[in-house]
This record gives sequence, C-alpha cells and structure tokens, in this order.
Amino acid sequence: MKDFDTIAAIATALGEGGISIIRVSGDKALSIVSSIFRGKKNRSIDDIKSYTMRYGHIVEKDTQRTIDEVIVSYMKGPKSFTAEDTIEINCHGGVTSTNRVLEEVIKAGARVAEPGEFTKRAFLNGRIDLSQAEAVIDIIRSKTDVSMKSALMQSEGRLSREINILSEKLLNVLAHIEFVVDFTEDDEEPDEHTPIAVANNLKSVISVINNLLDTASEGKILRDGLNMVIIGKPNVGKSSLLNSLLMEKRAIVTDIPGTTRDVIEEYINLDGIPVKIIDTAGIRETEDLVEKLGVQRSKEKINQADLIVLMLDLSRPLEEEDKEIIDFIKDKKYIVILNKVDLERKLQLEESMNFHNFIEISAVQGTGIDALKQKIKDMFFKGEVDAESVMVTNSRHKEALYRAKEGCVTALEQVESGAYLDLVSIYVTSALKALGEITGAEIQEDLVNKIFSSFCVGK
Amino acid sequence: MKDFDTIAAIATALGEGGISIIRVSGDKALSIVSSIFRGKKNRSIDDIKSYTMRYGHIVEKDTQRTIDEVIVSYMKGPKSFTAEDTIEINCHGGVTSTNRVLEEVIKAGARVAEPGEFTKRAFLNGRIDLSQAEAVIDIIRSKTDVSMKSALMQSEGRLSREINILSEKLLNVLAHIEFVVDFTEDDEEPDEHTPIAVANNLKSVISVINNLLDTASEGKILRDGLNMVIIGKPNVGKSSLLNSLLMEKRAIVTDIPGTTRDVIEEYINLDGIPVKIIDTAGIRETEDLVEKLGVQRSKEKINQADLIVLMLDLSRPLEEEDKEIIDFIKDKKYIVILNKVDLERKLQLEESMNFHNFIEISAVQGTGIDALKQKIKDMFFKGEVDAESVMVTNSRHKEALYRAKEGCVTALEQVESGAYLDLVSIYVTSALKALGEITGAEIQEDLVNKIFSSFCVGK
Repeated sequence: MKDFDTIAAIATALGEGGISIIRVSGDKALSIVSSIFRGKKNRSIDDIKSYTMRYGHIVEKDTQRTIDEVIVSYMKGPKSFTAEDTIEINCHGGVTSTNRVLEEVIKAGARVAEPGEFTKRAFLNGRIDLSQAEAVIDIIRSKTDVSMKSALMQSEGRLSREINILSEKLLNVLAHIEFVVDFTEDDEEPDEHTPIAVANNLKSVISVINNLLDTASEGKILRDGLNMVIIGKPNVGKSSLLNSLLMEKRAIVTDIPGTTRDVIEEYINLDGIPVKIIDTAGIRETEDLVEKLGVQRSKEKINQADLIVLMLDLSRPLEEEDKEIIDFIKDKKYIVILNKVDLERKLQLEESMNFHNFIEISAVQGTGIDALKQKIKDMFFKGEVDAESVMVTNSRHKEALYRAKEGCVTALEQVESGAYLDLVSIYVTSALKALGEITGAEIQEDLVNKIFSSFCVGK
Repeated sequence: MKDFDTIAAIATALGEGGISIIRVSGDKALSIVSSIFRGKKNRSIDDIKSYTMRYGHIVEKDTQRTIDEVIVSYMKGPKSFTAEDTIEINCHGGVTSTNRVLEEVIKAGARVAEPGEFTKRAFLNGRIDLSQAEAVIDIIRSKTDVSMKSALMQSEGRLSREINILSEKLLNVLAHIEFVVDFTEDDEEPDEHTPIAVANNLKSVISVINNLLDTASEGKILRDGLNMVIIGKPNVGKSSLLNSLLMEKRAIVTDIPGTTRDVIEEYINLDGIPVKIIDTAGIRETEDLVEKLGVQRSKEKINQADLIVLMLDLSRPLEEEDKEIIDFIKDKKYIVILNKVDLERKLQLEESMNFHNFIEISAVQGTGIDALKQKIKDMFFKGEVDAESVMVTNSRHKEALYRAKEGCVTALEQVESGAYLDLVSIYVTSALKALGEITGAEIQEDLVNKIFSSFCVGK
C-alpha cells in the first residue's frame, strides 16, 4: 500500500435523489469520519467492523450541531475499491445535504478527491491494472447493455489476461535470446534452432495481436457509439425514420450528462449497438437538414459520421443537390434509403450510381426498418454482436497494440534476415513496452494522470 | 407491520456517478436479491446479518450471466428506513448499469416503487408520522443549509411533538367535558369551575397555535424560497447587482432538476435564506427586463414575486414608465435601489413617492449590497434566521393549523357565552381532527397518496 493522504468526494450523481454517498478513502478515513459521527447513545464508530454499517448523525465538529442523518459503512483495506480503508456515508439525497456532509468531512481533515482519484488509487495500489481501471469509467458511461457487458469484462481483467500472456511470450523470447547470446560468448556454435523458435514465437504473438486489432473497430463502436447522420431533402421522411428507430422495443433514449448540462447526447440502442444520431434535434425541429444547413454544412456533418444514411424520396425525381450529395458520400460508409415505396415511383436511379447499399422502406408504414438495422449491423459487425469475447474498445489500447505489432514485425524481419539476435531483442523490448502501456506495467506518470482526469468526480 | 408487496427503485440521482443504489424493501427483499446475487466462492446472502455488507455480482437469473459487480447491504426490519426488510444494492453509477440491475430485481419478483413509496411505507408502518415523512423530501429539496436544518428538525419530530402536546391538551378538554356532562346527568349541580378550566385550556392552545402560525411565513420562505424580481430600465445595473449577490461567499447557485430537464431554478443563498430570482436568465441575457417585456409583462412578473427590487439610476431623471411601475408596486413588498451613487445625481425623488424602503448602492463598486441583504432579512424575518426553533414550513400544515385554531376559537366563544358543553365539544373535536391531519393521525387515504406522489422516485 502506498502512503497517500485521505480523500473524499460525492460518489453518486448529484441531483434530486433519495440517497447520496460521500466516499472517504485513506489511512485516516475512519478517524476523520469518527470525529464527526455521533451514533445512537453516542456510540462511536471507532470499533466498527469491516463490511458493517452504523446508523447515526454527522455533526459539526465544533458545535456538535446535527448536519444530517446518515448510515455509515466501513470497508477496511485492502478489501475495498481503492484497496485503502474506505468509509461510505449514505446521507439524504439532494444538493444541499450532500454538499454539507462533504464539507464537514473536508473540515475534519480529508482532501477533496480529484476526478478519477479513487480508481487511480485502486490502480496505484495494485488492486487493478490500468485497462481494468479504464473499464470502470466505460461501465459508467456505457450506452447499452452490450457496451456495458463488454466494459465489465474488461474491468474483470479479460483483456489484461490476453495482454499478459503476450507479454510473457515476448519475455520468453528475450530470455531465450539472452541465453543464446551469453552461450555464444563461450565461442561455441550458436544453436541454429534459436532463430526459428524466436520467429515462431513472434509469429504467434503477431497473430494474436492481429486478432485483437480486428476487434477494435467493433469495440470502438460498442464503447463510443456509432455516429450516424441522416440526410435528405425536406419531407423525405427523416423524422419518421428517426421515430421508428427510437420506438424499437429495446431502444432506450438516454441523457448522458457530461461535464456541462449543455452536452446531452441521444443514443439509439440498436440490438446492443449504441447509435448516436448526429443532429437529432435538427431532424426533429425542422425535418429539413439539407435545406437548413445547405450542402456545405451537410458535408461537414457527413465528415463527422461513421455512417451516412441518405434518404431519397421514391415519389420525387432526383435533383441536382441530391446528386451532389450522392457523389460526395460514394467513398464513405453509407446506406441509401429509398423511402415512400408505398407511393408511385418517379425516381429513377441512374446506372452510374450503382449503390451497393440501398434499402427500400416506408417510414410511415414502418416497413423496411428491420432490413435497415440488419444492414447497419452487417456493415459494422462481423456476425452477431458478441460482448463475451475479448475486445479492444479503447483507442489508446488499439494504438499501443499497433506499436507492439510493429515491434514484433520488425523483430521478425530482422530474425528472418539473419540479423544479430541482440539487435532483434531491441524491437522485442519495444513491443513489450507498448503492451505494458495497456496494463500500466510500463507507463509514464503524466499519462496516468491524463487518463484518470477524464473520469468523473467521485469515481 | 402491514402486509405489503416488495418494491424496488433507484434511490440515487440518475446520471454519471461512481455509484448508484437500488433499494429493495419488503418481506421478500432478501429472497429476491438473493436469487440474483452471486457472492465470492458462490456464497449466497441468505445468511447475511442485519447492518452488514457483502461483495459479489448481480447475475441474470436464467442465464447466470453477470450483470454488474455490486456490494449488497441488508437492514432487517424494523431497523430500516421503511421499517421493512431492506436491501440496498450498490452498483456502478451510470444510466445503463443502474437500469440493468433494477431490471433484474424487477424480473426476480419486486415491483417498481411509486414516487415516495419508501417514505410512505415508513409512515404507514408507523416508524414516522406524516409531518416527519414530508420533511424527508424537504431535506432533499432544501436550497440552503438553514432550510435543510429546519427540514431535518421536522423530520426528527420537533413539529410533531408540539402538535401532539396540543392534541393531548384538547383530548383532556374533551375528557373533562365528557366527565362533567356525565356527572350532571345525575341531577347534581354542574361544577362552575369547568367552563373556566376549559376556557383556560383553549386559550393556551390558541396561544401556542398563534405562535406556530407566526412562524409560517418565515418557514415557507425557508422551505420554498423567497421569490424576488429585479426590475428596472435597461443598463440600470440589474446584471451587476445579480452578480454581486451571486458572488457572496456563502452563495450557492444550484441546479434543482425537477421532473423535467427544462425546470432549472437558480437560488441565491442569502445567509441561509433561499432567494429565487425570477427570470434570472432574462436579466443575464438582456439586462433589459422592462424594455423587453414591456410594462404589462413586468407587472405580471411583479405579481408572482414575494419581493420586488426596483432599480433606479441616480444619474438619470425619472421617466413615465418608472413612475408607472413605482405606482404599481407601492402596496407590495418592495425595495427601491438607487444605483450609481458614484455618479452625478440627476434623479430627484418626488415627495409623493415617500419610499420607506430604499437603499443607495453602487452595484459596480459593490457598495450597499450588505445593506440590501440586511433589508431583505429585516423585511421577512424577525431577528436572526433561526432554524433551531420549531417552525411551520409547509402550507398544508399552516392551513390545518388555521382550521384547528378556528375550532378552538369557536369553542372558546361558545364556552364564554355559556353554551352547553357538549356543543363546545364538537368544535374541540374538529380542532383535534385538524391537528391530526398534520401528523397523519387523522387523514384520508387519498390525501396521503397525493402527498407522497409529489416525492421523487426512490425515496
């Protein structure tokens, strides 16, 4: 256990709720809370046992005036989230009571925790590794049950285990090389089998890394959501489509309050895939994105999107603007929706357009929506969405895996071109370092700080 | 203990937080949660002791798939908030995880709790009375530390004790009357001291009720806030004044999310008095309330306010519009602020205006703000704001006290005019009933339902 000061923060979301939790972690957690706690019959909590609770009041230290009625629970380190002695004070929900209790805890000697500091301590105290720590905030911010499942698996160390196996293999390669290099110093013949063994081990590591990297695009979507923009001319049916998607049985529309109240994002739960509709508000208010924004702004929206859904009206002929947009999206991931199949067809698709992704729907009648959803899944997920398998969801991990792969590939090239083995070991070492960044075995302090500062306060 | 089904709800505010709590209350709380909980080494929670916690996972009942990592705590009835067996599941904060865990609890046999249903059970199970139950939501919604203190005192039964003492006195009066009425049936002389004793008791009850009613206007402000509107012509300095008030050391500006996200109210903490500025946004955006709204709309705003602050610019002469507004507010609670004392005076107050409440300030230099605050306190609070004393904060209680007083006053009149004592007892009984509505000893079920339905979910 490292020697840290004692920190405190509100661990629940702030707002109107029945209960709030103030979490206190560190060596002095118990003594600090004890100094402002008054139990029934003035019983103190000095003798509280780990994993038990006590009813009482938080009082002002100086005046002994009651602040709030609380239940205090104690988790003695290392059997706690931070691996430190931890007290949780359950007080009345609401902004004033929660802040008042926190204020007294701070006055009694704790320091206000920085964002992510509890999880950071769990990491620094060695209870979880870095990828597990990062998964904690992914769980909290997960948009669908599948995203959450995937984050939970990562928090329980599924990715870490894979990375550790790879690291161990590379360590073995290094040990092998070192042994052989030491051995040849005795002027004996080098073992001709060594380069082959090293090459085979590197190939197997590269293959696993490739498999992991293959999951990264699906993983990123599960974690961050798929950015989708729906474009089309006024009254083509964008708003009806949006409503059809939102009304899906398992669809949830969730407010995810960010750091400011202004950032409210809406996600559609598409069989577990979080789909974020860019400019939902625009669609709802005006049904009129292209007209309102003009072609130029529409192009900007398109550039932000992972998927463009272009709606065309089968009952109206194509216009110049449509063609310009069609041309613009051709080399992107797009789906063309031909709406109003229920009306008389006046739209003729030109040969040159040759859409490979188009679906005919009637947004009003609700037909074709399932085909659209299936198409989206097919475009971004190979087979079923499977959160049970190991997945790379975090772009930081993906980037580190790329560097690890690069190191291994270069090492392999060197081995195969008959280079000195100690030269090879340099690249293997760099690959090992890159893997260590994922689990935090090898990582700079400022990067650690940066990672945790994006967490919410109280976690 | 009444025989209720088992209910569950999210007890913390919903949003991005480290931890959320799902609260489950009722006979089956333990068995329901036990059926979806998997502890370390598959240990169940069937043998969990009251006021202890267990670490583990919530799993899908059918598939045994992990939903979330949790800590479960148990409070066996009657030593719990509801007085029923209660389980609290602490899971990861965030919208998805919290809802998923609740979903599993519901699938396992609990019912989604209605707003306020936990507190309602605490009341129906006799753990707290109605005024204490109402105070719970007041604590959660309290806007300042003083409001909270006052609500906390009420939750601990301070008001109830006063009411119970009054009720007991009235019961004694009734008993006395009954005894005397029975006695006189034996054809003996009625005791001439009885009317005097009854009258004296009634007078003492009336006096206590009057004292309680005297606290009601202060109490209402502490609970609901003082509605203040700042009016004045463009550039008179409203925005600077607002900023000076908001920047007070102990001032907090709080978002109180209501049932919808649109309702965001801002309060200033004026030495413990919550002051709600009507149309803060208007002031900030335009600095221009009268001009933007016109005199008519300004008058509407004025009618919503408990206090009108009219700002006049000492460096500009009065105009017709100013005079019209001055005339309009004369019979309301108002403070006239003469701003820009630092500039040359061009404003002459006419004799006829004869403001009894005016303050000269320089909003820019920040002078006069303390005097303004003191003036506000003096206008609405007698002496220091004292949350320690018993206070009537709830308009329902105030209204019931009025009816109780009415009953007592009529009874007293009857006694003093020599009416038959059994007639007197009718009015005493009605006073007693009114008092019983405050504590819930005498109350209709639909009113109880109405009271609790205004609570938040999870409380």
